[in-house]
Amino acid sequence: MTAQPFAGVLVPVLTPFTANGEPDAGRFTLFCRWLLDQGAGGLAIFGTTSEANSMSPAERMALLDHLVEAGIPAEKLMPGTGACAMTDAAALVRHAVGHGCGGVLMLPPFYYKPVSDDGIFAFISGVIDKVASPALKVYLYHIPPVAVVGYSLDLVGRFIKAYPQTVVGLKDSSGDWSNTAALLDHYPGFAIFPGSEVFLLDALRKGGAGCITASGNANVAGIAKLYANWQTPQADALQAEITTVRNTLARYPMVPALKRVVAHFHDDPAWVAVRPPMLPLDQAQSAGLIADLAKIGFTLGERRQKAA
Amino acid sequence: MTAQPFAGVLVPVLTPFTANGEPDAGRFTLFCRWLLDQGAGGLAIFGTTSEANSMSPAERMALLDHLVEAGIPAEKLMPGTGACAMTDAAALVRHAVGHGCGGVLMLPPFYYKPVSDDGIFAFISGVIDKVASPALKVYLYHIPPVAVVGYSLDLVGRFIKAYPQTVVGLKDSSGDWSNTAALLDHYPGFAIFPGSEVFLLDALRKGGAGCITASGNANVAGIAKLYANWQTPQADALQAEITTVRNTLARYPMVPALKRVVAHFHDDPAWVAVRPPMLPLDQAQSAGLIADLAKIGFTLGERRQKAA
Repeated sequence: MTAQPFAGVLVPVLTPFTANGEPDAGRFTLFCRWLLDQGAGGLAIFGTTSEANSMSPAERMALLDHLVEAGIPAEKLMPGTGACAMTDAAALVRHAVGHGCGGVLMLPPFYYKPVSDDGIFAFISGVIDKVASPALKVYLYHIPPVAVVGYSLDLVGRFIKAYPQTVVGLKDSSGDWSNTAALLDHYPGFAIFPGSEVFLLDALRKGGAGCITASGNANVAGIAKLYANWQTPQADALQAEITTVRNTLARYPMVPALKRVVAHFHDDPAWVAVRPPMLPLDQAQSAGLIADLAKIGFTLGERRQKAA
Repeated sequence: MTAQPFAGVLVPVLTPFTANGEPDAGRFTLFCRWLLDQGAGGLAIFGTTSEANSMSPAERMALLDHLVEAGIPAEKLMPGTGACAMTDAAALVRHAVGHGCGGVLMLPPFYYKPVSDDGIFAFISGVIDKVASPALKVYLYHIPPVAVVGYSLDLVGRFIKAYPQTVVGLKDSSGDWSNTAALLDHYPGFAIFPGSEVFLLDALRKGGAGCITASGNANVAGIAKLYANWQTPQADALQAEITTVRNTLARYPMVPALKRVVAHFHDDPAWVAVRPPMLPLDQAQSAGLIADLAKIGFTLGERRQKAA
C-alpha cells in the first residue's frame, strides 16, 4: 500500500448545464472552488451525481481541462473515469493522469451482465497496464444499486495484491454498511470511503478515510465539521445533524433535488438543468424540498445552533 | 406508420478483434458479406452480441465506414447507436444516417436506475430531434436482462404516436414471450423482432417482422429457412431444429461461444478473441460446445437431413 492522496469529505460535484444542454464550464469552476473553500477534502468530479455518464468522454475531458486551467488544484481532483469500453476508460484515465489529478474513480464496465470477477479484473487491469503510469492512483467505485455490476470483497483483494502502489482505495455506494465494514476489516490501509455521510462516523471509528457523498454538494460544511470533530464528544450529535439533512434530501430524486438546492441557496436558477434521462423536479417537489429543508433549519455553509 | 425497411432474419454481427485487441475491419467485412450470402435479411451490427458497448463511438464509426466502403449495402445495415450520453447517441445516429443505413437500433440510456418513462422519452426524442432527418428509421432495443432499463408497453405507444414516420419497430430481447405478444397485439404494423429465433414462428403467426438473433451468427441459414417456409407444413419441424441449435449454444456464455463456433467452422482461430469484461471460453467449454453441436448434427450453412 502507498501514501494516500485523499482523506475527508469528497464531493461528487454536480455538473451544471446551459439552457442549450451543454456543460457549463464557468459555473462548474465557480462551484468547485466554493466546495473546496467550504472544506471539501477533494472533488470526485464526473461521478454518478455529476451525470458523468450523460456526457461523452470528450465533454468530460474538456471540463477537466477548464478546471485545471482555471486554477483548481489537480491534486484535489478524483475524476470518474469509468466507461463500458476499455478504450474510453483508458483515454479518460490517461487524460486525468496527464493533468496530475490526485486519483481516478473507476466504475467497473457496466453494460454486460452477468460479468465474472475475472472479466472485471481483465478490464481494469487492462486499463491500468495500458496507461502504465506510476503517478496513477485508482479508487474502485462500487455502486451496485446503479451500475448493477460491482466489486466483490475478493476482487478488491485481488486488485490490492496485484497493484499495491496503484489501486489504493474504494468508494462504497452499496448502501450496505456490512459491506463497508467487511472492507474495512479485510483491507486496513486501503482507503475506504462510504458513499453516504450517514455512515461517516461509523466508518471513521473503524479506520475509514472519510466519505464521498452526493449531499456534499449541499452540506459539505456540515459534513466536514463532523470529519474535523469526529474524536470529540460532539461527534454523535454532529452525525445526527448531517443524517437528518441527508434523509431529507433522500425523499426526492437525488440529482435534481441537489441541483434545486444549489439553484435556491446560491440564487442561481439556471442550476436546475439536468440532462435526460434525468428530469428536473416538478414544481410541487421543488416547493416541498425547500420547505422540508427549512423545517430542519438547513442553511448553506453553516449549521443552525441547536437549542441546548 | 411507414414502409418497413427490414424483415426476416437479422444478425447482430459478432465483432472480431486482432491479437492487439483492435477491431478487425477486414475479418468483419468478410463475415458480414458471408451472413448476407447465407440469407440474412439485414445486419444489426453493434448490438449486445457485437460487444458494441466494449468499443468507443469512434471505433464503431470507423468499422461502419469500412463496411460501406467495402461495398456492404448500407440499406441492409441497422447499427446499434445506443449510448448513455445523448451526445454520443446523436453522433452515432447522425453518422449512420449519413451512410444511408436502413435503420438504427437504439438502446435506452442504461446507466442511471431507476429512470422514468418520461426520462427515456426525453432522451430518445432529444436524439431524434437533434438528428432531424426524414431518412432516420429508429428501432427500439428492449433488452432488460442486460441493460436493466427498458421500454414499457406504454412508452412504445408514446413513441409510435409522436414519431410515426421515424420510430418504426422494436427488438424484444426480454426473453418474455408475453411481452412480445402484447407488443404485437397493441401495435399492428410496428415491426416487432423477437431477440431469439426460439420465438420466430410464434411471432410470424402473430404478424411479427422476423427476428434479430445472436445465434444467427452461427445458424443464419437454418433460421432463414424457417422464415422462408413459415407458412408451409414443415414450419414446426424447422422451428424445432433451430430451437435445438439455440438451446445447445445457450448452455455456454453466448458471445464467446458464438466466436468459438465461427473460429471452428470457418477454420479461423483468431475469431475467439473478445474484449474484457468478456472472456473467451476455456478449453473444456470449447471442446464441450463443439462436441454438443456435433451431437445434434449442426453444420454451417446447411441443415442435416432428418430421418423421416
